[in-house]
Amino acid sequence: MASLLRAAGTWGLFPWRGYCSRGMQGELGKGFVEALKAVVGSPHVSTAAADREQHGHDESIHRCQPPGAVVWPQNVEQVSRLAALCYSQGVPIIPFGTGTGLEGGVCAVQGGVCVNLTHMDRILKLNPEDFSVVVEPGVTRKVLNTYLRDSGLWFPVDPGADASLCGMVATAASGTNAVRYGTMRDNVLNLEVVLPGGRLLHTAGLGRHFRKSAAGYNLTGLFVGSEGTLGLITAATLRLHPAPEAMVAATCAFPSVQAAVDTTVHILQAAVPVARIEFLDEVMMDACNRHSQLNCSVAPTLFLEFHGSERALAEQIERAEEITQHNGGSHFCWAKEAEERSRLWAARHNAWYAALALRPGCKGYSTDVCVPISRLPEILVQTKEDLKASGLTGTIVGHVGDGNFHCILLVDPEDPEELDRVKAFGKQLGRSFLKSSVTTTRQVMASGLHDVWESQ
Amino acid sequence: MASLLRAAGTWGLFPWRGYCSRGMQGELGKGFVEALKAVVGSPHVSTAAADREQHGHDESIHRCQPPGAVVWPQNVEQVSRLAALCYSQGVPIIPFGTGTGLEGGVCAVQGGVCVNLTHMDRILKLNPEDFSVVVEPGVTRKVLNTYLRDSGLWFPVDPGADASLCGMVATAASGTNAVRYGTMRDNVLNLEVVLPGGRLLHTAGLGRHFRKSAAGYNLTGLFVGSEGTLGLITAATLRLHPAPEAMVAATCAFPSVQAAVDTTVHILQAAVPVARIEFLDEVMMDACNRHSQLNCSVAPTLFLEFHGSERALAEQIERAEEITQHNGGSHFCWAKEAEERSRLWAARHNAWYAALALRPGCKGYSTDVCVPISRLPEILVQTKEDLKASGLTGTIVGHVGDGNFHCILLVDPEDPEELDRVKAFGKQLGRSFLKSSVTTTRQVMASGLHDVWESQ
Repeated sequence: MASLLRAAGTWGLFPWRGYCSRGMQGELGKGFVEALKAVVGSPHVSTAAADREQHGHDESIHRCQPPGAVVWPQNVEQVSRLAALCYSQGVPIIPFGTGTGLEGGVCAVQGGVCVNLTHMDRILKLNPEDFSVVVEPGVTRKVLNTYLRDSGLWFPVDPGADASLCGMVATAASGTNAVRYGTMRDNVLNLEVVLPGGRLLHTAGLGRHFRKSAAGYNLTGLFVGSEGTLGLITAATLRLHPAPEAMVAATCAFPSVQAAVDTTVHILQAAVPVARIEFLDEVMMDACNRHSQLNCSVAPTLFLEFHGSERALAEQIERAEEITQHNGGSHFCWAKEAEERSRLWAARHNAWYAALALRPGCKGYSTDVCVPISRLPEILVQTKEDLKASGLTGTIVGHVGDGNFHCILLVDPEDPEELDRVKAFGKQLGRSFLKSSVTTTRQVMASGLHDVWESQ
Repeated sequence: MASLLRAAGTWGLFPWRGYCSRGMQGELGKGFVEALKAVVGSPHVSTAAADREQHGHDESIHRCQPPGAVVWPQNVEQVSRLAALCYSQGVPIIPFGTGTGLEGGVCAVQGGVCVNLTHMDRILKLNPEDFSVVVEPGVTRKVLNTYLRDSGLWFPVDPGADASLCGMVATAASGTNAVRYGTMRDNVLNLEVVLPGGRLLHTAGLGRHFRKSAAGYNLTGLFVGSEGTLGLITAATLRLHPAPEAMVAATCAFPSVQAAVDTTVHILQAAVPVARIEFLDEVMMDACNRHSQLNCSVAPTLFLEFHGSERALAEQIERAEEITQHNGGSHFCWAKEAEERSRLWAARHNAWYAALALRPGCKGYSTDVCVPISRLPEILVQTKEDLKASGLTGTIVGHVGDGNFHCILLVDPEDPEELDRVKAFGKQLGRSFLKSSVTTTRQVMASGLHDVWESQ
């Protein structure tokens, strides 16, 4: 999650008033810290350097920018009082979940108070008949799915990390299942939000969890992806899905990037309701083989998964295989048992760490681009060539079913020349795609991280 | 679409300045009308009583409240200049599509300029490979689907009327296919909007039509369902779906409302991917039999439709029939040929007019309530009893797959006692549902029509 109010602009301009000292940037006044303690209790406030450091960065390359203090509220009333206190003093607020972001959203670029919400970690209400659940911000996606195991339901959105669900709301997270089940944008029914002044808002009305509503502005949609700039999410009502009757996964190697991506486009155009379709280039496959002990060909590869009844599966697989063969793909290498499937997807989810292991000691920088499906083959092939030409070490991996792909670039943060090349590559990627009227990276457009980047 | 800026509040408070006369409400000053003509050309401005009357109401009971003038812009530049002109003079703007709304959204409650957008009726760009299309505001859902006939694609959202697609965006329209394909909330990729001051906004960026994006605030979602209060929608990029390989529809009669609704809930919970599941009570069935020459049992009935490959259909139907039988439903009465299916769904879409024909000369008043699926049986049965107790003539019809249903009440607008009873019934419905923490009618919550109603 990114800084609350950062996008509001003005707040960040008047940070250190009232209780706040005029001391070094990042330090809060003693009186203000005491006021924080009065809200959440002394044991739940820290100004220790270690805690501040730990909360000043995520898993990305962006340099640590620690907040002035970290607080751990225990309930929504405390969050509300914290927001009111910070608001009255013009102190920035940074909501913090698992810190597993890859875009520096938690960096305290103007200091302030980091609100770590992981102590609020209850699953508040499961409504199995209505396919919905209400969770507090500390609940992660894996904890929720473990809880749901015997209910016949599951929550499909799965970014790589075991992120907090409310952090996933704040960042409009996506994942391998988005092609069939949508992203967070499609799976949030209601939010409880603490607004900057401390007021509580239920974006779809208190206690509601309808499948559809046209009553009033779509405030839920506005908060999904607002990156912590509009309020602190203190509870989310999520849409659940029936657990598929049967699932089967497969990998398939291709002679070229073009062939793999063409296959993706053809499968989608044939309306095969594939649940997952992920692309990994040969560098990424090599890294995954090593890091996750897979034994796949070192070639451009698709990871696929099909969900449905046994009969529906047979039909989907038949069609997908036909298209794959037509594009010169290998035979499907199956993962039918739950354990095999888990191993495959764990490898995919750990792609970031696998890439990092290619150059120990280096940091990762991930781009995040989404393009119209029809232009995906051309753009991916071009990106692969640009990456080669740049001389950088990087892998390509993507939720290609949504036209979404990442370049994970490995950089020695102590090498300014290499940093410059990474920066140039990222810029070129964003700019050429803007010109081709496709989206740019989330970094540049949403999180304002271009500035963070520039300042490095 | 409802009045632009109505929700903004302040604008409506300073209406008749500058060019505007201080004459009778609803009349615009001569100079202002000349200025309108300078923008769109004389033939495209009318202050004739007939045109103003025609644009002061929709198909609902809400009394006609005519605008001061009607304009027909020919392109987005004209819309922009009209918005700037009205904005500068504090004159309310009311976007107008087909006028087929049922909630009085086009009533010019504070006079102003009605902007009829039907002359802008081009289909601007079809991207078949990306499953998207760009339409101007005058294009209706039927025109679009006729255009798409040979493309293998279709646009599934289908409110009863042949509404304009941008009007459907503005009202977050829904329909019989929502249970499988979602509402307008799920099927808009980008909007071109003229803001009150005349500025042009592309909510997802110029020319973009991605399946997914997390770049910036979800402005598209904010405009969907904003009822014309945030801007004039001048083009919409819509998400298309592959036309199903095969379709089959069926009707099924039930011994009670409870049995029909229980069946719906069980079908959903069994995750049968039904494309349509609509409930009609026995009064509605009787009206449809007469109005649309159907020959169905006069009993609580479900209309169902299944989409998919032949094999997938067989499986869906098998499961749905099992559940239906279990709940005491009749055997399915099939509509397999395209013509039969069209006749069935035309009857469903014409339910409003069929209901009106039950009491010629009367007006219709439709409630619009959405409840969690798990509570639907109890609430529908209760509503049916309340309707009986009220002594009013009314039918119940609903997109029950989404927990959404309508009571269409027939009222003699000249009978104040009956009007009072309708009003009391609508209030009770909304209030009791609010208490049970389910949504209220769109009328009460979104359109501010409670006040319109109160003032009648």
